[in-house]
Amino acid sequence: MKEGKVFVFDKEPVIISHAAVVGKKEGEGPLRHEFDYIFEDSKAGEDSWEQSESRIHREAVTRAISKSGCENKDIDVIISGDLLDQCTGTAFSIKDFGIPFVGVYGACSTMALSMLMAATMIQAGFCSKTVAATSSHFCSAEKQFRMPLEYGGQRPPTAQWTATASGAVVVSDSGNGVKITSGLVGTMQDMGITDANNMGAAMAPAACDTIAKYLKQTKTTPEDYDMILTGDLGIVGTELLLDLLKKQENIDISSVHNDCGLMIYNLDDRDVNSGGSGCGCSGAVVCSKILRRMEAGELKKVLFIGTGALLSAVSALQSETIPSIAHLVCLESER
Amino acid sequence: MKEGKVFVFDKEPVIISHAAVVGKKEGEGPLRHEFDYIFEDSKAGEDSWEQSESRIHREAVTRAISKSGCENKDIDVIISGDLLDQCTGTAFSIKDFGIPFVGVYGACSTMALSMLMAATMIQAGFCSKTVAATSSHFCSAEKQFRMPLEYGGQRPPTAQWTATASGAVVVSDSGNGVKITSGLVGTMQDMGITDANNMGAAMAPAACDTIAKYLKQTKTTPEDYDMILTGDLGIVGTELLLDLLKKQENIDISSVHNDCGLMIYNLDDRDVNSGGSGCGCSGAVVCSKILRRMEAGELKKVLFIGTGALLSAVSALQSETIPSIAHLVCLESER
Repeated sequence: MKEGKVFVFDKEPVIISHAAVVGKKEGEGPLRHEFDYIFEDSKAGEDSWEQSESRIHREAVTRAISKSGCENKDIDVIISGDLLDQCTGTAFSIKDFGIPFVGVYGACSTMALSMLMAATMIQAGFCSKTVAATSSHFCSAEKQFRMPLEYGGQRPPTAQWTATASGAVVVSDSGNGVKITSGLVGTMQDMGITDANNMGAAMAPAACDTIAKYLKQTKTTPEDYDMILTGDLGIVGTELLLDLLKKQENIDISSVHNDCGLMIYNLDDRDVNSGGSGCGCSGAVVCSKILRRMEAGELKKVLFIGTGALLSAVSALQSETIPSIAHLVCLESER
Repeated sequence: MKEGKVFVFDKEPVIISHAAVVGKKEGEGPLRHEFDYIFEDSKAGEDSWEQSESRIHREAVTRAISKSGCENKDIDVIISGDLLDQCTGTAFSIKDFGIPFVGVYGACSTMALSMLMAATMIQAGFCSKTVAATSSHFCSAEKQFRMPLEYGGQRPPTAQWTATASGAVVVSDSGNGVKITSGLVGTMQDMGITDANNMGAAMAPAACDTIAKYLKQTKTTPEDYDMILTGDLGIVGTELLLDLLKKQENIDISSVHNDCGLMIYNLDDRDVNSGGSGCGCSGAVVCSKILRRMEAGELKKVLFIGTGALLSAVSALQSETIPSIAHLVCLESER
């Protein structure tokens, strides 16, 4: 098995601004005071769920660019993707921005993947300012992956709730902010899970693999980090991850671990079952509370591991397994 | 409008091997002697069209790695994507390879995008050997984007035929072969085309934008290249591109232009209408005839511009426009 090489960003790409935009339900959760903007209307004033997702995505990107003091013309490239078929949530959100665009697909790992690619382009010396972003929408995702909303299907306790949310960062080759100091591209893992209502279980082995490889290669231990943050395993996947890391790798991250899927909602809201998910969940959590706490010096060193379940509605109906992946970025605050 | 910065790969990432694997129809076309393997059975021995696409993709990647003299464990990262929802054509093809994986989405521009990202990772100093790949399958694409095959819907003359094909390259930081010397990330263009049966028209403005920006920034003219190769505009899109470049930019590329969609099939085959398309079309054409001719010294300097139409079946049904993008890589032979 390929170990994967840790990418060390010695040019220290820096997150000079970030924005998180969410829907009503997310805006009623524990992070309600952390977000840049909350759409009270699930459709965000648009005609379809897909347009609504694009609207939220556009809002996050626009706010991140504006907060950085840049204009669209100052951005060398935007790296983004989402869960919708052919990543149309992204395409329709930024098609008129006139910014060179690299589309990425990593399912719910997209925020970490896009940050990793943004930092890589700065390291290669090609870009001065890049945007990394992602989004998801509960209604566009349910409609696409599961059932029409009107059907009112019951959800098992292992199911996660796709966040209506978007996160965006401006990553720069200079300036002040949280630095992306290293990263690791994930390797797909497939333990044979076929239950699309239990993606936490499908994704936990991928998170385990990436975290173990990263710690081993960097010769660090969980104690070297203020937080090891996965996004999004939910309750079921988190339990599995902690267990897998302990039993397979003899690594205990329980004292520093958190998961974006556990942070975005009130977990006593029975709707959300195992917690939040969707590209926008970790996108909005990282681009609000996490980066704010790092900027305030409350967290100095955070490993953010985005986890993605690489299934489609078709592959699920064809009873295929759910290959999963976890991409990692190490974030460090100067304070 | 952002001009986009040309990425100059002074570390000269080199394509040390390539492989192209196609279906029966492609194997009966003018490039039949160029491909590494032709599946006579459209299902490639699998149970579904989706599995068949993954099988073809896997075959191309496996052959490219094997031809490079490498094993899977020598590859630092694979960058790949395809047209299927959530890029499952790619995920299920290489999930068991144990190679770190970056998923990209650029519709039919994916071969150029994945080569551009592979070269960027080598330029950043993170990788020694990378794979860039893509695939498409006529049957999985028709089923997903248009009609069930059994419906036998008529296709207008502007429609293109999605190739059942895959292309893969191994891009290395050293070795012999064709070099990727520079590249340009495309910027989305949207001229308001809504006809999903006329994607050549939707994509031509994106190709025009990318080619004009690249020539301007590199202060080169079409005469500096042995070939300016788009993939895939087909008959309709090619005519539009040549026209747009002449009228808007005063650039005449007609003497050196070719298009992968015009090369892969016999154009007197009425089935293919305006020509080939699909990620695998330009993937298989570049990874066979083009790179072979460059290795033989028959072509020294080629601009390859992958063009992608960023629509989905849902966006088409919702009468959205078709935003398009074109990514460019400059390929240079040493001979």
